Amino acid sequence: MDHSFYMKEALREAYKAYLKEEIPVGAVVVRNNEIIARAHNLRETLKDPTAHAEILAIRDASRVLGGWRLIGCSLYVTMEPCIMCLGAIVQSRIENLIIGARDTKSIDCEYKSNFKKEYLNDNISVTFGILEDKSSKILKRFFKKLRKR
Amino acid sequence: MDHSFYMKEALREAYKAYLKEEIPVGAVVVRNNEIIARAHNLRETLKDPTAHAEILAIRDASRVLGGWRLIGCSLYVTMEPCIMCLGAIVQSRIENLIIGARDTKSIDCEYKSNFKKEYLNDNISVTFGILEDKSSKILKRFFKKLRKR
Repeated sequence: MDHSFYMKEALREAYKAYLKEEIPVGAVVVRNNEIIARAHNLRETLKDPTAHAEILAIRDASRVLGGWRLIGCSLYVTMEPCIMCLGAIVQSRIENLIIGARDTKSIDCEYKSNFKKEYLNDNISVTFGILEDKSSKILKRFFKKLRKR
Repeated sequence: MDHSFYMKEALREAYKAYLKEEIPVGAVVVRNNEIIARAHNLRETLKDPTAHAEILAIRDASRVLGGWRLIGCSLYVTMEPCIMCLGAIVQSRIENLIIGARDTKSIDCEYKSNFKKEYLNDNISVTFGILEDKSSKILKRFFKKLRKR
C-alpha cells in the first residue's frame, strides 16, 4: 500500500477545511486499496464539537459498509488524533492508523501523549510521519493567519 | 441541583436503549436547571460506532444552543464514558460530568482508568455514583439476556 498516495487525498480534504476557515485536518478511510470515505474538519461549519475529520470519515465509512465495525479498514489523517477521535478509531475497530503531523497545539496534547501511545499500541497498528511536512505546513499557515486577525 | 432528578431522566433514556436491544446507556444535557438534550445509545440501530448516548446528546445540545461550545452545561450519563465520549465531553467544554455506574465491561476500562481519572480531573468537575445501583442493574440485565441467546 502506498501511504503517500492516500495521505495526499487526506491533505486534499485538509485544504477544503482551510478554505472554510476550519482547522485544516483531513481524513480518508481505505479498504481493499479503495477510498470508501473522506472528510475534513467541520466543527465551526456544523457547530458540532464532534465534527472532527476522523469522526465524520468514520461515520461515513459506516454508512458505506452498512455496519459500525470497520473491519479491514485503514484511516489516514493529516494530524495526530485527539482523545475523542482516538477513542472513536478504537470503537470502530479500524485496523490501521496512518498519521501525518504530530499534534502540538490541542488541549489533549501535553501529558496525554504517553497515554495515546499506550492506548494506540494496545489496540491498533500505527504509522507516523507520512507527508508530515505538508500536513504540518497547512496547520501552521492556518494558525499564522488566525493570529493576524 | 438535584442530581438524582436528572439521572432519573438519563435512566429513562437508558431504558429506551434497552427496549431496542442496545447496550442500555442514557444521557441528558442540563443547562440552567433545564434539560436541553437527551439521548440513548443507538450504535446498532444507526450502524454508527460513534452513536453512544453521550455523543448524540452533545450533538443535540449543540444544535439547541446553536454553537459547539456547551458552556455552563452538565452532562448526566448512566455509565462511565468510554475514551471517545470522554474526549467529546472535553472537546465540547461541558463543565460538569455526573456519572451513574462504573464501567467494568468495555474495551476501554482496564488500565485506562488511571488515565481517565487524570484527564477528567484536569478538564472537568466529575461526580460519581448517582443512582449507581439502578444504572448498573439495567446494564447487568442486558448482558444477562444477551448471554442467554
